[in-house]
Amino acid sequence: MANLINEAAILAARNNQKEITQDNLFEAIEKVLLGPERRSHIFSKKEKEITAYHEAGHALVACSLPYTDPVHKVSIVSRGRAGGYTLKLPTEDKHLRSRSEFESELAVLLGGFVAEKIIFKDTTTGASNDLKVASDLARRMITQYGMSDILGPITFGEKEEMVFLGKEISTNKNYSETVAFQIDEEIKKLITKGLNSSKKVLTQKTDILHKIAKELISKETLEQKEFYALVR
Amino acid sequence: MANLINEAAILAARNNQKEITQDNLFEAIEKVLLGPERRSHIFSKKEKEITAYHEAGHALVACSLPYTDPVHKVSIVSRGRAGGYTLKLPTEDKHLRSRSEFESELAVLLGGFVAEKIIFKDTTTGASNDLKVASDLARRMITQYGMSDILGPITFGEKEEMVFLGKEISTNKNYSETVAFQIDEEIKKLITKGLNSSKKVLTQKTDILHKIAKELISKETLEQKEFYALVR
Amino acid sequence: MANLINEAAILAARNNQKEITQDNLFEAIEKVLLGPERRSHIFSKKEKEITAYHEAGHALVACSLPYTDPVHKVSIVSRGRAGGYTLKLPTEDKHLRSRSEFESELAVLLGGFVAEKIIFKDTTTGASNDLKVASDLARRMITQYGMSDILGPITFGEKEEMVFLGKEISTNKNYSETVAFQIDEEIKKLITKGLNSSKKVLTQKTDILHKIAKELISKETLEQKEFYALVR
Amino acid sequence: MANLINEAAILAARNNQKEITQDNLFEAIEKVLLGPERRSHIFSKKEKEITAYHEAGHALVACSLPYTDPVHKVSIVSRGRAGGYTLKLPTEDKHLRSRSEFESELAVLLGGFVAEKIIFKDTTTGASNDLKVASDLARRMITQYGMSDILGPITFGEKEEMVFLGKEISTNKNYSETVAFQIDEEIKKLITKGLNSSKKVLTQKTDILHKIAKELISKETLEQKEFYALVR
Amino acid sequence: MANLINEAAILAARNNQKEITQDNLFEAIEKVLLGPERRSHIFSKKEKEITAYHEAGHALVACSLPYTDPVHKVSIVSRGRAGGYTLKLPTEDKHLRSRSEFESELAVLLGGFVAEKIIFKDTTTGASNDLKVASDLARRMITQYGMSDILGPITFGEKEEMVFLGKEISTNKNYSETVAFQIDEEIKKLITKGLNSSKKVLTQKTDILHKIAKELISKETLEQKEFYALVR
Amino acid sequence: MANLINEAAILAARNNQKEITQDNLFEAIEKVLLGPERRSHIFSKKEKEITAYHEAGHALVACSLPYTDPVHKVSIVSRGRAGGYTLKLPTEDKHLRSRSEFESELAVLLGGFVAEKIIFKDTTTGASNDLKVASDLARRMITQYGMSDILGPITFGEKEEMVFLGKEISTNKNYSETVAFQIDEEIKKLITKGLNSSKKVLTQKTDILHKIAKELISKETLEQKEFYALVR
Repeated sequence: MANLINEAAILAARNNQKEITQDNLFEAIEKVLLGPERRSHIFSKKEKEITAYHEAGHALVACSLPYTDPVHKVSIVSRGRAGGYTLKLPTEDKHLRSRSEFESELAVLLGGFVAEKIIFKDTTTGASNDLKVASDLARRMITQYGMSDILGPITFGEKEEMVFLGKEISTNKNYSETVAFQIDEEIKKLITKGLNSSKKVLTQKTDILHKIAKELISKETLEQKEFYALVR
Repeated sequence: MANLINEAAILAARNNQKEITQDNLFEAIEKVLLGPERRSHIFSKKEKEITAYHEAGHALVACSLPYTDPVHKVSIVSRGRAGGYTLKLPTEDKHLRSRSEFESELAVLLGGFVAEKIIFKDTTTGASNDLKVASDLARRMITQYGMSDILGPITFGEKEEMVFLGKEISTNKNYSETVAFQIDEEIKKLITKGLNSSKKVLTQKTDILHKIAKELISKETLEQKEFYALVR
Repeated sequence: MANLINEAAILAARNNQKEITQDNLFEAIEKVLLGPERRSHIFSKKEKEITAYHEAGHALVACSLPYTDPVHKVSIVSRGRAGGYTLKLPTEDKHLRSRSEFESELAVLLGGFVAEKIIFKDTTTGASNDLKVASDLARRMITQYGMSDILGPITFGEKEEMVFLGKEISTNKNYSETVAFQIDEEIKKLITKGLNSSKKVLTQKTDILHKIAKELISKETLEQKEFYALVR
Repeated sequence: MANLINEAAILAARNNQKEITQDNLFEAIEKVLLGPERRSHIFSKKEKEITAYHEAGHALVACSLPYTDPVHKVSIVSRGRAGGYTLKLPTEDKHLRSRSEFESELAVLLGGFVAEKIIFKDTTTGASNDLKVASDLARRMITQYGMSDILGPITFGEKEEMVFLGKEISTNKNYSETVAFQIDEEIKKLITKGLNSSKKVLTQKTDILHKIAKELISKETLEQKEFYALVR
Repeated sequence: MANLINEAAILAARNNQKEITQDNLFEAIEKVLLGPERRSHIFSKKEKEITAYHEAGHALVACSLPYTDPVHKVSIVSRGRAGGYTLKLPTEDKHLRSRSEFESELAVLLGGFVAEKIIFKDTTTGASNDLKVASDLARRMITQYGMSDILGPITFGEKEEMVFLGKEISTNKNYSETVAFQIDEEIKKLITKGLNSSKKVLTQKTDILHKIAKELISKETLEQKEFYALVR
Repeated sequence: MANLINEAAILAARNNQKEITQDNLFEAIEKVLLGPERRSHIFSKKEKEITAYHEAGHALVACSLPYTDPVHKVSIVSRGRAGGYTLKLPTEDKHLRSRSEFESELAVLLGGFVAEKIIFKDTTTGASNDLKVASDLARRMITQYGMSDILGPITFGEKEEMVFLGKEISTNKNYSETVAFQIDEEIKKLITKGLNSSKKVLTQKTDILHKIAKELISKETLEQKEFYALVR
């Protein structure tokens, strides 16, 4: 938190502002969450197009499903290890997350992958981090939060901490093969559900998807207002 | 123990009391067990409501089933990592715990999860620690205390201690897949039984559940007497 | 051994005796085997009753089956981590233990668990160490001593010693799932046999069980003569 | 990158050039990617022939399939641990790789193995690194990039980092045997598809394969232009 | 070797001999192989009887089967961790061991266990080291020496050496469950064959078994000549 | 290499030669590969006979199958841990090994085991290192070199390097039980094929096997010319 405010203060100082504005704060959030901008990263025309449809996919699913946070910014400027990014910010602090929210989140996370598939009939390595985050979330819903009706309100997997010189936390498989298989099946069911929500949104609104992607290719970044103007 | 009395003494001193009262002791117990109050934690209206029904669920199941300890306090003030808490205190020291007590405890632990499901038709991450504690207890009942009729009075899993620079205790799976599956089945049976007891209480007494939750939303904390006044 | 005699000498000195008596030796054995008495441990009336029936169960099975050592003392005074104890002492040193002796020992170990079940229709965590010792013994009979006719005179599991900074010995599973399952089945068979012997004794002699338990509740400790007077 | 330019500068200096040429850069790339030339490595006539057909296989498949990078050089001069090498360089920087590209890459990687099999009806240890790289790529396509329709956009296997004195990263199997088997099946399907593409190219163009191999045996290295002259 | 001769020299010196005799050497062998005599170890009459039949069993099987070394001494004097011992010495140095020799050795190793079973209809913990040695030998015959016709001349299990501060060697299971099961089956077949050879000898020669055991009970140790006098 | 030449120089110096001869080099190779001669190792007449047939088996299979290196020397003089040895030297340096060569090599490696079985109807521990080397080679052919038609050109098992104070390399099983079973089956198929080739040679040429073994018993070592004189 202190880190964020500090970063915002630096940004304000660079612009010769006397006070930290909300814009400074948002910029600081992006820098801290996603790493610094990497404009030196040169994308080919094709890659720029793929990235634009990928981010447009995330953003369009996010603003079309219930229980999601508002889209704050969509960008195809490379930051840290990501080729582009869609920034969603909750309207208030959140301490509890519900199954309904997580189900929408899975669809949003898969939105980039689905957009690539619909538009290019192919997928790229660009989706790999999204898939990892979605798979981990689906696994947690089932094994930590009791959100699977098949497995019930039971937690699975025992965390182990080993401290040598460094530090390691591994998860011990404390269940049978039958349960391992049920967990795999339930993860697949959740991911498929998210995939289908995402597909439904993006096939029904393919024209809006094209509009957002084209705007992204020309402007590189869409602020909240610009984005919602395209969507409505 | 010394730690508890010390904490109580500090609290007494802060109030300019000359003696440690029972109230100081109870306050010390809460602080040591649950961590300090975190009133800075700002909950949304929705989250406050969820937390109120969650804690009301624990408390109502606890006072409705046999073999449980009296409810000492119910609160939706955030403490440590918990959003709210229900404090039960035994009327005398306990060295032995019976299968009947554990079965009621499972129902109480699941009371928050069940209340969320009944009222909001959804569940949240707020139940995750309850589920972990309940799952671990069910596992111990079966693998350490001989409380499963299917598996019998046999203990399963061999504790291993490894001492490097830090310390680690892991459980070695010293049984076959068939037994691993039976353990999973028995855990599920115990959790389902607890779930059903909890559901039965909370569906029969939904009006009382609403009363407790509403009181919690307005007062934030219910002392023992206030709580039992609502329940009777 | 030196430790035992030393302890006995200290006890003799405290009583201003000039010689170590057999009683000093027995007292030293209890202290070294079970830890010091913990009279500060306050049990509720209910817990005292459970403990009395539990110890009475061990002692009554021990004196009713062949191949067992004589009961030297039964007590519900807490010692070390145990709530009560039944002390059996062999009449001569033993270097070899037979299958018949082990089968009786399993029944004796389960005597406390069975007594609780018969009297209270419930079991407690108080039996957990007995169950662990019985399970380990049954496992050793099958995997180290060739005492299972199904598995034959073969040893299973390869001991591994790892020496880092501390020390650890783990058992490597060097057999197939099929054998793992047979071992589980044979352990269950041995434990069930012990359980049945124990049940048979305690249901046939329930009146004596009540007598011993009641004496234990009033006197807390029964010496060898007092115990055998009740049993005959 | 700095390393590459430094290496190129050294090569330019050795030739008394005043500027770094593109040739210096390409030579630097080879040296850094593949290790220094090892002309001391004496191959038998037979081994030279096998290596020539192996590299010709890679190169011919690479220039016959879509989504591949242009062949920059083919050589049977030993470098580092490789007996020969085929250098492909992308026409522009790449940040995203698609399923179609990876499928062609699998065929190219297997081109050496297939060429040996077609020409000599036998295979050698020379293909072992190609097979490892292809197997790892197929595994990643399925478990990290969601490129299997059977398994879907889910990631499998949890990376673990252990830091002692050295460093180790292992992959934890966090899925059931059923999924493990599906992953094996999908890897096999991808490898078989690549194998078949490679076989199709090399059986249809066996005459060109002979031409490239013979040129390699006499000249040892074919530059881009020489290579494409043979192929067209 | 130097150790053995040194030990023999000490024994010779104690007896005021000027030269090391063969007897000194044999005594040194016993001391080094089995540990020092422990006459302080007091056995009950029953245990002495069991040990006598156990050792008589080993010795009688050893002298009745082909491919075995001559019995040098039989004793029920406790040495090291063993209650008694049967010392066999080869007539010449051996570097190669055959399947036939190992099959006889398995029968000899099980001779003590079988003798206890025949005479007392019960077995004791005294056989546990014999069973471990026999099981390890049977496993090695199958997994290291290619002596199973079912599994063939293949070795199974990859030795791993880990050197931290201490030292550890573990065996990595590098085969499938199906092979693990076949290994278990083959070990059982070899042990059963040894068991049957042993039973056949000891049931046909039970009178000689009684004679040896009785002599051992009265004399405690039988030298080679005394032993063979009883057997012939 | 430097080590080899150094060793050869020492041998030349000992014989007062002014130049290193090819014989010095060959002697150096034996010493470095196999360890120093151990003439002190006293073999019984029987063991000498077994070793002679064992080495004769290796040598006769080696010179009878295609794709093998010429036999340079056969000896029953003990070196390092081996009882005898058969030295084959390639006629030129080899960097690539083919499936055909490996198949012959498996037959040669099993030649000693097969010869013992044919002549003595028994096998000994003397073959254990040959079996290990053959099993490891067969496993590598299948899991690293793509030489199994059933499993295809896929590599299996992920190498892991762990560096603590010492060093360890283990192979991580990254495939399903089904593949583990297929690998076992394919290893068995390759070993059986080698076994059959070896049996075919040695049963057809048993008279030559006897001749070589007898010469070895009388001369202990056969140089290349002496060996080929017997074989032709």
